[in-house]
Amino acid sequence: MKMRLILLFLVFFSPISFAKIPPRLFPSSFDDQLSSKGKLSYETNYFTQILDHFNYNNPQTFQQRYLLNDKYWGGSKNSAPIFVYTGNEGNIEWFTQNTGFMFEIARHFNALLVFIEHRFYGKSIPYGGDKTIAYSNKTTLGYLSSTQALADYATLIIDLKNNLTAINSPVVVFGGSYGGMLAAWFRLKYPHVTIGALASSAPILNFGNITSPYSFNNIITQDFKGESENCYKVIKGSWKQIEDMAKTKDGLEKLRKSFRICKNYISQGALENWLYTAFVYTAMTDYPTPSNFLNPLPAYPVKQMCKAIDDPKSGKDTFEKIYGAANIYYNYTGNATCFDLNDHSDPHGLAGWTWQACTEMVMPTDGNNKESIFPPSKWDYNERAQFCKSNFGVEPRPNWVTTEFGGYNIERVLKRFGSNIIFFNGLRDPWSGAGVLKDISKSIVAIVTKEGAHHVDLRWSSKEDPKWLKQVREREVNIISNWFSQYYQSLNEI
Amino acid sequence: MKMRLILLFLVFFSPISFAKIPPRLFPSSFDDQLSSKGKLSYETNYFTQILDHFNYNNPQTFQQRYLLNDKYWGGSKNSAPIFVYTGNEGNIEWFTQNTGFMFEIARHFNALLVFIEHRFYGKSIPYGGDKTIAYSNKTTLGYLSSTQALADYATLIIDLKNNLTAINSPVVVFGGSYGGMLAAWFRLKYPHVTIGALASSAPILNFGNITSPYSFNNIITQDFKGESENCYKVIKGSWKQIEDMAKTKDGLEKLRKSFRICKNYISQGALENWLYTAFVYTAMTDYPTPSNFLNPLPAYPVKQMCKAIDDPKSGKDTFEKIYGAANIYYNYTGNATCFDLNDHSDPHGLAGWTWQACTEMVMPTDGNNKESIFPPSKWDYNERAQFCKSNFGVEPRPNWVTTEFGGYNIERVLKRFGSNIIFFNGLRDPWSGAGVLKDISKSIVAIVTKEGAHHVDLRWSSKEDPKWLKQVREREVNIISNWFSQYYQSLNEI
Repeated sequence: MKMRLILLFLVFFSPISFAKIPPRLFPSSFDDQLSSKGKLSYETNYFTQILDHFNYNNPQTFQQRYLLNDKYWGGSKNSAPIFVYTGNEGNIEWFTQNTGFMFEIARHFNALLVFIEHRFYGKSIPYGGDKTIAYSNKTTLGYLSSTQALADYATLIIDLKNNLTAINSPVVVFGGSYGGMLAAWFRLKYPHVTIGALASSAPILNFGNITSPYSFNNIITQDFKGESENCYKVIKGSWKQIEDMAKTKDGLEKLRKSFRICKNYISQGALENWLYTAFVYTAMTDYPTPSNFLNPLPAYPVKQMCKAIDDPKSGKDTFEKIYGAANIYYNYTGNATCFDLNDHSDPHGLAGWTWQACTEMVMPTDGNNKESIFPPSKWDYNERAQFCKSNFGVEPRPNWVTTEFGGYNIERVLKRFGSNIIFFNGLRDPWSGAGVLKDISKSIVAIVTKEGAHHVDLRWSSKEDPKWLKQVREREVNIISNWFSQYYQSLNEI
Repeated sequence: MKMRLILLFLVFFSPISFAKIPPRLFPSSFDDQLSSKGKLSYETNYFTQILDHFNYNNPQTFQQRYLLNDKYWGGSKNSAPIFVYTGNEGNIEWFTQNTGFMFEIARHFNALLVFIEHRFYGKSIPYGGDKTIAYSNKTTLGYLSSTQALADYATLIIDLKNNLTAINSPVVVFGGSYGGMLAAWFRLKYPHVTIGALASSAPILNFGNITSPYSFNNIITQDFKGESENCYKVIKGSWKQIEDMAKTKDGLEKLRKSFRICKNYISQGALENWLYTAFVYTAMTDYPTPSNFLNPLPAYPVKQMCKAIDDPKSGKDTFEKIYGAANIYYNYTGNATCFDLNDHSDPHGLAGWTWQACTEMVMPTDGNNKESIFPPSKWDYNERAQFCKSNFGVEPRPNWVTTEFGGYNIERVLKRFGSNIIFFNGLRDPWSGAGVLKDISKSIVAIVTKEGAHHVDLRWSSKEDPKWLKQVREREVNIISNWFSQYYQSLNEI
């Protein structure tokens, strides 16, 4: 069996197969532990943005959405700070709702909150907001890139500051995951627009051969193995059993029933994807408190999955055990009656990532060595290239990100260049292997915790948060405070 | 009278009017003082470059020229350095021939020399090298921009280092004028590709309202006034006399004869441009030794011009005096019989600058206050915009350069960000007013000399060079040496 799924932060590459669960809408479905407690509020604005910053042959513009909260802002007269979230590959409201940290520290800093949506996502769709046109072919999609997005952020922030006559208000950028990569790159490329960046779980080193393509799945393996050796073995052994069982029609029907797959569609590949998705995203969102980022999940969901697998009640039936684990991810609320493998809905509007992965975001993640919890496989650039060719008629540029943003020898390069970046990584996060895990200089620092999953620090806080998480946030607040002290001092000096 | 000429480093904006002098070709016409003394040698190479780095809808490539000299190189095994000239708005051979400094210090540093031609100039023309197509309209010209050029340099340098297996060879970039702006920006944007930049006479602050639009002509005024008050007064007074004289046909014919203009064409505007050109470029190239950058010129040509004006032999005839000054610039060799105001030849291939000035390079320079040596005028953005609209059908983006590269509050922004940039400026250079004239940090330093014109430090050295110029070069060599020490040390450490 060969499992070749290209994992891209929040969305599978192809095929996209989400299970059918009751439609979720933020913030109504927030559960208590991560609720906004009334703090989540923003107004929606649109900015007329240039479609192509780097060529001049195209006067087209589009409406870029950004969310604003000035409840805590100290105002332009006080040169009070501006916190900007550099939006990632989806609806900005979704990321805003899941970035409670910014709301929670805004009062302390008297900060204006701005969440900017990434072009081609959410409601920030070029071509008059018509997604059908914008996503129709490589010519229209050609304007979807990280460099254009960063130039968007610079343009919008400068314009906003001018409009608010807040020229001297320092800007700090925040982001998680791809948004964290953008935040870090934004500080590096636009130091005249932002004084510092908090880049949470930003795998900026997952390009070229900087990071091993086995790193991602090694960490997932370790997450499960660390909970229970048996859990790891059961999952690892299940793939062969599924493969064998799927060889006959009757076997496939048995699999369908075991995993409560709806009657409309099943295939071996789709089932494997469905399970792979569950394991990967559970590892990514292995938070210490209940969450509802992708699906509603209990605290420490990896532990819960392994508990289901290790449960003596499930006997020796591997499928039943694996189903129990998958059920944690797909059906924690218990509302699902069956799972639709043919459901390609995209509630958070993440589809554009496939294009980005076919152009610049070539992030080798799907290597699996012998010990992997998933079947052995190698990262194969040519497969990606073929997919992209047939899907979009484009050839990826696997060296572009390291050309434009660097990454090789980052410690040497940034040791005496740049300043004011925090790289946070929790080592349970599969992406952490491609993050910056060591301090580079006095002010380009790595905060690393043994615990912690994908941008856990940016979540709404909770009474139940463990001590290490509280310490991470405290440290982040302290560092940002120092940036401001330095900034306001230099404002007086120069 | 209104003199509205938009000055762009080396070429007038419109109309372009160079005088007819015998065709000049480098290096054959080098005079002794700036000759290459046999050191000038290079081989010509071409690199297949991506036309559009920032969009993915265009797979087109073009052949980018670069010149190479490995005579002094210590080789990849020794991680010996690479010196790269970031080409400006013209034929790269011309800039190479006028950047003797790099050849002269290459032996000391065992450096490989690379001179990269800027896209759309010289032989680096997209669309199969066909300038007629490349320059035909805004769609094809759209790919001519500084951001694309910087990405070209990054891509080419990385590829070259890979091909030479010289991954650890540190790269230092050099550039003068627009090339100096590119060098500085390249260090800021691509610190992973270059460890430092020597940005000579780089007016990176001539954007938005960072620098006064009067600065440029104020410096020219000072250059001439500093030589002789009478010289300044005669030039300043001449414009009104020309204007008055040009009102009649007979008067225009008298002007034609006074200035030895060829019979084929004269107009008041063209004559004024012709004189303005002479004063501006003489000030820019007011070098302490004879030069042949734009035209063959004696040492200290401003002084020579004023000598001609102050010469009692020329009596009281203002036109004769001004002609004597212009003759220094246009006819130092004495070969010209008449000057053709209708000559639009472009020996150094600078025409693309008009496009750049109509898109991103909106550099306000043509303000003239009451004291100016030129007639009073204001910088008027709308005039530029109208010209660009009618000429190319584009609207400039006057805020783009400060959005993309910064400039406002540069001292505050770079005080704790970035490193290893030398900004050289000679204060006789009209562009120096928009240069970085103060140290920003320990390693972002300004070398400023009271004497010295446009990128004088990059010229071939001469026995006749004044002490201050030798000291500038020594200091530059020392600073670059320190970059290497630091780099090689960190190579061992990390």
